[in-house]
Order: sequence, then structure tokens, then C-alpha cells
Amino acid sequence: MADRQRPLNRPRLSLAGMHLERTSPIALHQQIAAHLRSGILRGTFSAGTQFLGSREVARELGCWRMVVLTAWELLYAEGYLESTPRGGVSVASVNQTRANAAPVTADDAAAPFDVGHISNRWQSLLASEYDTNWKSDFSPGAPDISGFPFKDWARLLRQSWQDPDHAECLDLPAAGLPALRHEIANFLGSVRGVVCTPAEVVVTSGTSSALDLISRMILDHGDEVWVEEPGFVEARWALTAAGARLVPVPVDDKGLCVAEGIRRAPNAKLIVVTPSHQYPLGISMGLERRLELLDWANRNNAWIVEDDYNSEFRHQDSMIASLRSLDREQRVIYLGTFSKIMMPSLRLGYVVAPERFVTPFTRGRARIDVHSSGIGQMALAGFMKEGHLLRHLRRMRKVYAIRQQALMQAIITYMPDDLSVAPSATGLHLVAFFTGALKARMSDEEAARSLKAAGIHVQPLSQNYLELATRQGLVFGYGRLNAEDAPRLIARIAGILGCAPGPRASR
Amino acid sequence: MADRQRPLNRPRLSLAGMHLERTSPIALHQQIAAHLRSGILRGTFSAGTQFLGSREVARELGCWRMVVLTAWELLYAEGYLESTPRGGVSVASVNQTRANAAPVTADDAAAPFDVGHISNRWQSLLASEYDTNWKSDFSPGAPDISGFPFKDWARLLRQSWQDPDHAECLDLPAAGLPALRHEIANFLGSVRGVVCTPAEVVVTSGTSSALDLISRMILDHGDEVWVEEPGFVEARWALTAAGARLVPVPVDDKGLCVAEGIRRAPNAKLIVVTPSHQYPLGISMGLERRLELLDWANRNNAWIVEDDYNSEFRHQDSMIASLRSLDREQRVIYLGTFSKIMMPSLRLGYVVAPERFVTPFTRGRARIDVHSSGIGQMALAGFMKEGHLLRHLRRMRKVYAIRQQALMQAIITYMPDDLSVAPSATGLHLVAFFTGALKARMSDEEAARSLKAAGIHVQPLSQNYLELATRQGLVFGYGRLNAEDAPRLIARIAGILGCAPGPRASR
Repeated sequence: MADRQRPLNRPRLSLAGMHLERTSPIALHQQIAAHLRSGILRGTFSAGTQFLGSREVARELGCWRMVVLTAWELLYAEGYLESTPRGGVSVASVNQTRANAAPVTADDAAAPFDVGHISNRWQSLLASEYDTNWKSDFSPGAPDISGFPFKDWARLLRQSWQDPDHAECLDLPAAGLPALRHEIANFLGSVRGVVCTPAEVVVTSGTSSALDLISRMILDHGDEVWVEEPGFVEARWALTAAGARLVPVPVDDKGLCVAEGIRRAPNAKLIVVTPSHQYPLGISMGLERRLELLDWANRNNAWIVEDDYNSEFRHQDSMIASLRSLDREQRVIYLGTFSKIMMPSLRLGYVVAPERFVTPFTRGRARIDVHSSGIGQMALAGFMKEGHLLRHLRRMRKVYAIRQQALMQAIITYMPDDLSVAPSATGLHLVAFFTGALKARMSDEEAARSLKAAGIHVQPLSQNYLELATRQGLVFGYGRLNAEDAPRLIARIAGILGCAPGPRASR
Repeated sequence: MADRQRPLNRPRLSLAGMHLERTSPIALHQQIAAHLRSGILRGTFSAGTQFLGSREVARELGCWRMVVLTAWELLYAEGYLESTPRGGVSVASVNQTRANAAPVTADDAAAPFDVGHISNRWQSLLASEYDTNWKSDFSPGAPDISGFPFKDWARLLRQSWQDPDHAECLDLPAAGLPALRHEIANFLGSVRGVVCTPAEVVVTSGTSSALDLISRMILDHGDEVWVEEPGFVEARWALTAAGARLVPVPVDDKGLCVAEGIRRAPNAKLIVVTPSHQYPLGISMGLERRLELLDWANRNNAWIVEDDYNSEFRHQDSMIASLRSLDREQRVIYLGTFSKIMMPSLRLGYVVAPERFVTPFTRGRARIDVHSSGIGQMALAGFMKEGHLLRHLRRMRKVYAIRQQALMQAIITYMPDDLSVAPSATGLHLVAFFTGALKARMSDEEAARSLKAAGIHVQPLSQNYLELATRQGLVFGYGRLNAEDAPRLIARIAGILGCAPGPRASR
């Protein structure tokens, strides 16, 4: 234990043992101060310890005396040092007990700590095992960016920042840059047949973030929300974190079973659906069900989130009217994202909703995440206005159609008795359902585990169920699958799962 | 009421009344479909209504027959139309009652709606009256960007997107771009004396968003959190939205009164403090209090958020050690932002925390907001690496010091008997406290209201209190105040508040 008495004639301490790191970005006086602070807190330099004069210390360390004096002043201001009668400095008696209670050896500092207090909601987020591996050939959501017009995007970013509007740099509207909201409204009209005004558009930081904000705007702890069963796992995280009670509502061949939802959770405040192309099953919700859902939401004062993901890849001629366009009572909050039609790292998307939603949404949002990053909003508006986005989209529609075709053909060729697939009108993935023959041999979780062990990441369909999965299958993304690789990769999967190839398979 | 019987020989309907908008971005067949959908849902076209043949409709509308056929097909797929025995189309009997229940006139549609279900947490966000008007001369947080090196920033954005790393475009790490985390760690070492590794840095979307995520990671509904009284209103919003119980802990001339915090909320899970330069009072927390706080947090398994806002503007020589650098038990989560040293619309900031925090934080965060926008992360790393940020910061330190001096001088000149100000070591604002003389005439809220009526936005100090304000004052931001305007503006304020100028005032 260090001597608590203040000695009067103890020899003054040298700092010769200290090493100054001259190439470090940390200023020399800060290095000296950090060294002393640490020694004082560890008890190495006890209260009353006097140091050599600033000239001597500067000589020892090979630095200017000013550097040492600056360090002394800093520590004096912080209360670590006191001045001595003879003009020197000594260690102040700052709460020694407490300082000494800190770990004193490097070994102690390296000892494992418990993680400390973490909330239940966060632990539930951490607990789920779902793996979003976008680097896999079969990742369900990853787009192909090899043909993305990076040069135009880079040029527009430069142009937008050369001489920007200073008012917007300081105070961008919470709903997003007006020019971008305008372009999004135009885009939705031409690509998706969704008629809306710029005032109904809010720029978001992508689907997850939008759902996070929407669920907190609408739901209190314990409020019920209908989610599709099977459904989009990413959507459930935000709802779970918001404290919602998730009620799985089955999806049949006409889409969400509204009557079953009403039976299971008649007081739900929110419904989250993917009506154009149900995730993961790919079903389009029928008109009767759409009207039934809207009617129920109207009568029960509930909101509907329509996640219209990937509908941009659908050919316009086969496009189904959105819930939004059927909504006459201002119930529908339409969600879109640039993650798939451009790339996910941008974290930009949009909400289209009636102004009675937009006003409280943006006002509340301004207080918890201010607005989405303004770095790319002007460039994105230019990118859309100059037609680059539409051109890229048209190119990618063709590319993805070819990939889907190649994937389907490969599955039919190599696993005809074990998997059953149907073409999909849009999107970046297909579900291959297990036939009775394959189901008898393994579950989809078992199949995915065997494939993962061989380095192939494919999502088991049952991972998308909240309750017990009623169907078994594999979700194959093809966004990043080269068409010519499909036969080889699927043949390999067939081999691992022990599937017999059909008559047309030959290597 | 429309006839529910399906007529056999009713004349077939023309669409001659419909107008096709050829310059619209909405495809012609989508326009036809939208017109029919709307008519069917409103009951204008009742079930069984047959339309003229596609050739005749095409002639009426002046478009290709293919356009009409595509519209028919779409509505057929959606269930609005049925085919007739003679190869034509008629309106299907889709749940007429429900369709007719929708408003049928434009007047109805314009009738006011109730806002619908909004959660309590969101209503509490909306309820607060606090006004963040960054356009005012005296806004407490607005930086000056007139000298910002936009050309370099624009060039770096272009460079970073010319030929980017595709893996990062698809799958940026949740903690941020490694190169940016590296630059932030260097920057903090050199500018702030905070020693950290890149692994301890997480890129965030600014302080509000970081606090939103941190409070949800640490707090469950009803958990207690200490906040400074008076304190930073923006910080309280995220905590309130997270369902926390905010416990105001007074600040005296040594900073946060830790003992009072322990008395008021001994089980708090989180403490949010601004120790370098308390907001709004500008006090630097003393070493004793810092150690007392750390010690209490250790013993109670609580986390500390150290919001080190604006400390970059402080001259290094007067820099106080951060709580983070005193923290030996991995309790401190250090927050910084680029909103003030660059500009707020970027929405970029950082958290520095022990890895035991960083790991669960980024993993959970990936599930609710994925990561901060990747559009500017590489450019920002380059901006820091090339030294533009440090140069801008050095320039702005001088600019802000001159502005603070001008503001103080003007207040001393024009309102010597009514306001009392002291210089501040850093930041973009000063608090001018009411003297007894002014307090006897009005409250700070009343003063702010009078000024607002004259078009001058100044924040009343009492707005920063959760409980009854114990002091009265005005918070003057000077980030965007031109030094030469200070005398005129302050003289005007003195006039509005009826303050007598000092002997040196003359116009």
C-alpha cells in the first residue's frame, strides 16, 4: 500500500522510464499526461510524489520544456497534480482508495468481464440464429451490381457536392430532399403504377429502418401485429424490438388468410404484408383478400404496411394493382427500397403514405433519427432524373429472368423427384418445395445444414415460419447466380442431398 | 343502387369519356386500368357491365389495340373483369357491398380523417414543444459551413465511387467501413487524446440515432436513466421513446451531482452525461466527480454514455481527460458526431466503446437499421486521411473564438445589468444568465416569446430543465453569427427586452 503521508524531503521522481512515441498522432504532452494519469490511478505515483523540474524532465524525455509544462498544466487543471511551495508539482491526494480499487496489473485488465446490463428486447434480437449471408451464390436478397453505372453515380455525387445549397446541408427536411421525393413519386407512377404526390413520399434509410420507425409510431408494448406465415424474418426483428406481439397469419394460394387473422388477433393495430409477391412463397394476393383486408383495417382503425419489395423487377404488363391504389381510407403505408434495384450499402428507401401518416411520422422521426443521410439524396434524384435507374432496371430484369430460367431448369434436370419449382413473376428468389420423397429422407433444416457443411449457403424454407413449418423447401436466391454456373452448383447440391438426376442430366 | 342482376343484352359500355394523358410517366394501359378499377370500386361500373370490344375502345381512346388488351388482361388477373361467352369482358361480381362502402364522391374523400392509431411513445415525442430552428442566427448547434472545403469533399466522393469494392457495396460491416473506423481512432487520438483501437469504433448515423440504439440495447420499459438537469433535450427524446424513466440529476459547479443521482435513482441502468462541457451550462466535470461516477457505475453494473460533443473545438492544451480515458472497467460509451465539425445533413457520427459493448451492439443493430449509409464512408475516410478535416477544424476554432468574443462583448455592452456571461472553453453557444434585475421583470420563457414575436429565435434556458428551472437565462448559439452583426442584433434584443445599455454602448 502506498504511503498516505505527504513526505517533505522524498527524492523527486524522474520520468526517464517513459517512452515518447514521436510518430504517434497523439501529441507529446498528451502522451506524458496519459502516462502520469495512468500511474496515479494505478497507485504507482502516490499522493505527494514530487517530480523533477520541467527542465530536467524535458531533458530526460528529449522534448521541449514547453511540452512538459503543458502536460503539468493539463494535469493540474484536471486535479491530478498540485503545485508545491518551491514551484514544482506533486501528485494530488485525489480519492486514493477509489483510484487504487481499479485493476493494477495488465493481467487484471485482460480478465473477462460480464457483458453488463443488456435489455430484454436487445437480447431477443441477438438470440435469433437467422443468418443473412449475402455473399452466397444463393442469397435470397443480393442483387448483381457488376453492371451498375458506377461512373454516372460517381459523377452525380461530385456534381451534387461541388456547390451545394447551404440551407439543405444544415437543415434537410426530415422527409427528405424535395427533389428526391419528386423523382420517387414519378418513378412509382411509371414503374409501379402507384399514383402519389411528392408530399406523400418520405425518404427512409431502407426497409428495416422504416419498419423500425413505423412499428414504434403505431405499436406500444404488447400490441398485436399480423405477420405472414411463412414470412420475411427481417421484418419481424424490428417488430419484436418494438415490443409487439407477433401473430402469425397463414398464407394460402390466394395470399394472407384474412379471416384467420381476424380470428387470431381481432385487435391487431398493424398488418405487415407483401401482397404483390409474398415473401417467401411468391404468391400474389387476390383482389377479394385485398378488399377484405382493407375493409377490416378500416373498421378496426388498424394500419397496413405494404412491403412491395422487388416489384420493380416485374414486367409492367403483369403488374398487379398495389394495396395502396385500392386504399380509399388512408390505411396503407407503402414501402420500397433502393437496396435491390441499386445496392444495399446505400441504405436508402422510401415510404409512401397518406399525409395524415406522413405528418406525425416525420415529426416524430425528426426527434429520434433526424433524417436519412443527405450525402446521396441529391445524386440519387439526378440518377433517376437522367434515366440511369430505369435503364439499369430494364437491363437487370432481363438478366434476372435468364438466371431464374437457368436455376429452374437445373433443378428440374438434377432433382426432378425431390424438389418442385414454379416460375415466379418477379423477385430475386425461387422456393423449391420438398416432394414427399425428399421429405421422407430429411427436413429442410437438415438439408441446409448438410449444404452449409459443404460451403453452400441455402436458406431452409422453415426458417421463415414463426410456428411449426407446414411446408418444407429451400429458398434459392439467383440475383448473383451466373446462369452458366447453375447446372454445376445444382448438380453438386443434388449429390450432397443424395438426389437422383432426371433423364436429361449428363455431365 | 346499381342493378345486381347480370343483364344479358344490355348495351356494351364505351370508354369515350376517358382521357389518356400521353405525357404522363404512367403507361397508357395502366391509366386505363386505373380508370376502370376506380369506376368498379365506386360502383360506377356495376357487376356484369360489358365493355365494347378492344378494337372499338382502342379507336375511341386513340391508342393501339394491344394497350387495351393489356389493360383487360391486367384487370382480369386482378379479378376485376371476367370474360364473356362472346370473347368480350365484363365487370366481375367482386364483393360489391364492400366496394360500394368506400367513399363515392370526391367530397367524401376530402373529409377529415382522424389520425388513426398512434402509439403512446410516439405521441410523447410529438407532444414536446421544443423547437430546433437551425436557421436562426442564435441556434445553439448550427455550425458555419461557408468555409467548408466542398470541392475536396466532392472530389473524394467521386473517387470513392468510380470503381468501388463490390463486396463492400453489397455487405458493408454493421460497425462501418474499416478504413473509416481506423481514421476515427487516429483522429480521436490526435484531437481529443482519446486512445482507442479501430475495433472499438462503430460508425453511427449521428448522436440522436446512436442514443436511440444505445438506449434500446440497455434499457427496458420503465428502467431508470440519469440525465443532467438542466440538460440536452435532444438526448431525452430517444430515451423517452425507448420507454425509459428519466431521472433529472442536478448539475452544480463541479458537474453532475453524483450523490444526488444515487439518492434519486439507485438502480439506474444508464447515465447520460456531457462531462467536458456540460450542455447547456458549459461546466467541466471535476475529477472527483468523474471517479465517483465511474465507481458507482462499476458497483451497480450500469453503463455511462459520455457525449463529448464539440470538444473538438477546444484548444488541445486546455483539454480535460475524457471519462473514457479514466474508465478501467469498460463502462463508458463515448459518443461523437461529424454534425458540428462538418455539417448535420451527413448524419454520420461514431461510438467508441469497449469490445464487450461493440459486439452485441453491432450485432443487434444489424437487425434493426443494418448500418449507417455507406455512400459517404469511404470519402470521409479519405477526407480525414488527407488532413482536410483537421485543417477545417483549425480554421473554425479561430472563427468561433472570435464570434464568442464578439457575442460576449455585445452582451456586456448592451445588457450589463440584466445578463451575466462567462467565456466558454469550447462549443458553439454561451448561456447568458438573468440577473435579479431582469428576473424581476420577466421569465426566460417570456423573454424568448417576445423575441420570437420580433423574429429572433433564442432558446430559453428553462427549456432544458425537466423539473422546475432553478436558473433563468438565454442560450445564445454563435456558430453562424457574424461577429460584425453581434452588436446590432444584441442591441435589438436589449431594446425588445427593455434593457438599459452600459456606458460603452453607442450606435
